Amino acid sequence: MKTRAAVAWEAGKPLSIETIDIEGPKAGEVLVEVMATGVCHTDAYTLSGLDSEGKFPAILGHEGAGIVREVGAGVTSVKVGDHVIPLYTPECRQCKTCLSQRSNLCTAIRGTQGQGVMPDGTTRFRCESTGGRGSNTVFHYMGCSTFANHTVLPEIAVAKVREDAPFDKICYIGCGVTTGLGAVIYTGKVWPGANVVVFGLGGIGLNVIQGARMVGADKIIGVDLNPAKAEMARKFGMTHFVNPDEVGRDKVVQAIVDLTGGGADFSFECVGNIHTMRQALECCHRGWGESIIIGVAPSGQEISTRPFQLVTGRVWKGSAFGGARGRTDVPKIVDWYMEGKIDIDSLITHTMPLDEINTAFDLMHEGKSIRSVVVY
Amino acid sequence: MKTRAAVAWEAGKPLSIETIDIEGPKAGEVLVEVMATGVCHTDAYTLSGLDSEGKFPAILGHEGAGIVREVGAGVTSVKVGDHVIPLYTPECRQCKTCLSQRSNLCTAIRGTQGQGVMPDGTTRFRCESTGGRGSNTVFHYMGCSTFANHTVLPEIAVAKVREDAPFDKICYIGCGVTTGLGAVIYTGKVWPGANVVVFGLGGIGLNVIQGARMVGADKIIGVDLNPAKAEMARKFGMTHFVNPDEVGRDKVVQAIVDLTGGGADFSFECVGNIHTMRQALECCHRGWGESIIIGVAPSGQEISTRPFQLVTGRVWKGSAFGGARGRTDVPKIVDWYMEGKIDIDSLITHTMPLDEINTAFDLMHEGKSIRSVVVY
Repeated sequence: MKTRAAVAWEAGKPLSIETIDIEGPKAGEVLVEVMATGVCHTDAYTLSGLDSEGKFPAILGHEGAGIVREVGAGVTSVKVGDHVIPLYTPECRQCKTCLSQRSNLCTAIRGTQGQGVMPDGTTRFRCESTGGRGSNTVFHYMGCSTFANHTVLPEIAVAKVREDAPFDKICYIGCGVTTGLGAVIYTGKVWPGANVVVFGLGGIGLNVIQGARMVGADKIIGVDLNPAKAEMARKFGMTHFVNPDEVGRDKVVQAIVDLTGGGADFSFECVGNIHTMRQALECCHRGWGESIIIGVAPSGQEISTRPFQLVTGRVWKGSAFGGARGRTDVPKIVDWYMEGKIDIDSLITHTMPLDEINTAFDLMHEGKSIRSVVVY
Repeated sequence: MKTRAAVAWEAGKPLSIETIDIEGPKAGEVLVEVMATGVCHTDAYTLSGLDSEGKFPAILGHEGAGIVREVGAGVTSVKVGDHVIPLYTPECRQCKTCLSQRSNLCTAIRGTQGQGVMPDGTTRFRCESTGGRGSNTVFHYMGCSTFANHTVLPEIAVAKVREDAPFDKICYIGCGVTTGLGAVIYTGKVWPGANVVVFGLGGIGLNVIQGARMVGADKIIGVDLNPAKAEMARKFGMTHFVNPDEVGRDKVVQAIVDLTGGGADFSFECVGNIHTMRQALECCHRGWGESIIIGVAPSGQEISTRPFQLVTGRVWKGSAFGGARGRTDVPKIVDWYMEGKIDIDSLITHTMPLDEINTAFDLMHEGKSIRSVVVY
């Protein structure tokens, strides 16, 4: 069938709106009509060409919500008409990692997903009018490709969600919301009364903050160089703000230790900077403080610290997709949104049709948006 | 009263056997007759002068066992005649850390202990015959000073143990045994069937190995440059041996990933080398593998890795005194020894009287001993 999509023909160029051919679902797969998709920093990172694993041409986008329109042979967990959120971290419930019950990083389709193809090794997207821009084969992206109005996914890579939830809001649960909220709930298991520090008050940081508020954290300290970000963060639950340029960039750790009477119980790094990653570890409480890395550092950069920091009880971990199991936990987060436990609406600062998707990237680069959502 | 002690007059010099004056216990303190003491690398480290916190003259030693001979006012948890193990990590059960129930690193007397004095700020040791070697005030060490036949400790810094346990064996529980075994049981909480890797097959490494065996680990892989250490390690439960010089020093991680079918569930670094600390982290299984640093790196050195290692689910932690709460857990470990669940006898390769304590340091530096014990 034909569908419309924003195609990334090559790195560093704007996306191009095209009519493409999409093949239907094979066994174990579903065809989803994407109703809305967020535009995330990760899409921009790959489009920039810095992502060494990025393949072009491709249909980017990994933060969507839509409706199952067709199911392949043997599909049992969803049916036509179901509302779903595509999962770039699938949940097969059968691989070593899923069965370990200790990680959400399902490996069932990792190999092919990283190569921009479906589990059978083929791509389902073709674009006849390449306009001289290379092959008419178009690759998948993060197993999702939500910048197409229709996409194909393995059954294990969709989370079935309630039908009364608005697509243009819950699409954000497909990445940003779950990444921040989940890091608090699933990776950190933050307890009521804990002191929490959040480095970076962008979209992920705000979702960490509201996660910490939701689980009853005590102090929720935000750290950001931009004081303009404090207002929104306070609305989401931040109780204290630390501006490194005010306290001194080399005194951030001490400021947090002072504020918390000894150090944070949990810290979350949402910047992707190796220096704030170190500060986030070292501001943790001796004996038990845990620091969780969410941000993605530039390729090749390394974190470091004195081992004494760990020997005296601090713990260094990371979180991907918030430690959430997609099919199990994402529907719960949709429920929490519908029950008013978390706010998504305030974070979606811009919506636009597919034709204007490049504006979403511009707004992101200019720091004018928290999240832009494309509505099909 | 008078007692005999090995005094460290200055860094880099042999210990000197002296008759010293020791003051009796003040309120909340006990006088212990030390019956046996191990000689540990940490004593040698401080004696070498590399320990920036080392104070001289001092009575070193922190791995002892003995009998309470006198109690100060208000002491309720032990009485005269009780058998005890001195604790360099006390357990007050009242400080923020003890009450957190998340760490063994009690802070009740941390400040004074680090300064070589009792909680009231004074030292109880004096030596009249300085022989021109400076002050006749002699400092305490790690709150224990077990290289004296009698020593004074706060009540919160002694673990009461069963009376049928031999002093010349259970003294090793005061440091080495608990550090290794505890890291497995209390810090790592290693589960039955886990794959465990141990870097460094000295005394600590062997105690990690027997801890892993005790809790039912599956593969127990030892890593050491010295193949002569493999035989003893196998006796303690090691199932596989990796010699970095055989597999290639830069291929140790891959060798362990291959052996374990994906990576270790737990790794323990018992060398104190920042490069093996990195290998220990990176050989852990994606998604959940935990690496626990036990070894002490040279002052000022730093560990590093790519943050991707943590974001994909590995956890980096450390362990001090095995995460054991001294008064609560040390008596249990004595029971385990008496019940035959762990072997200490094979690890104590040499015993000697106090007069020959310098021989214990020589044997250690020559790599000829696992543990030497001084019997008073």
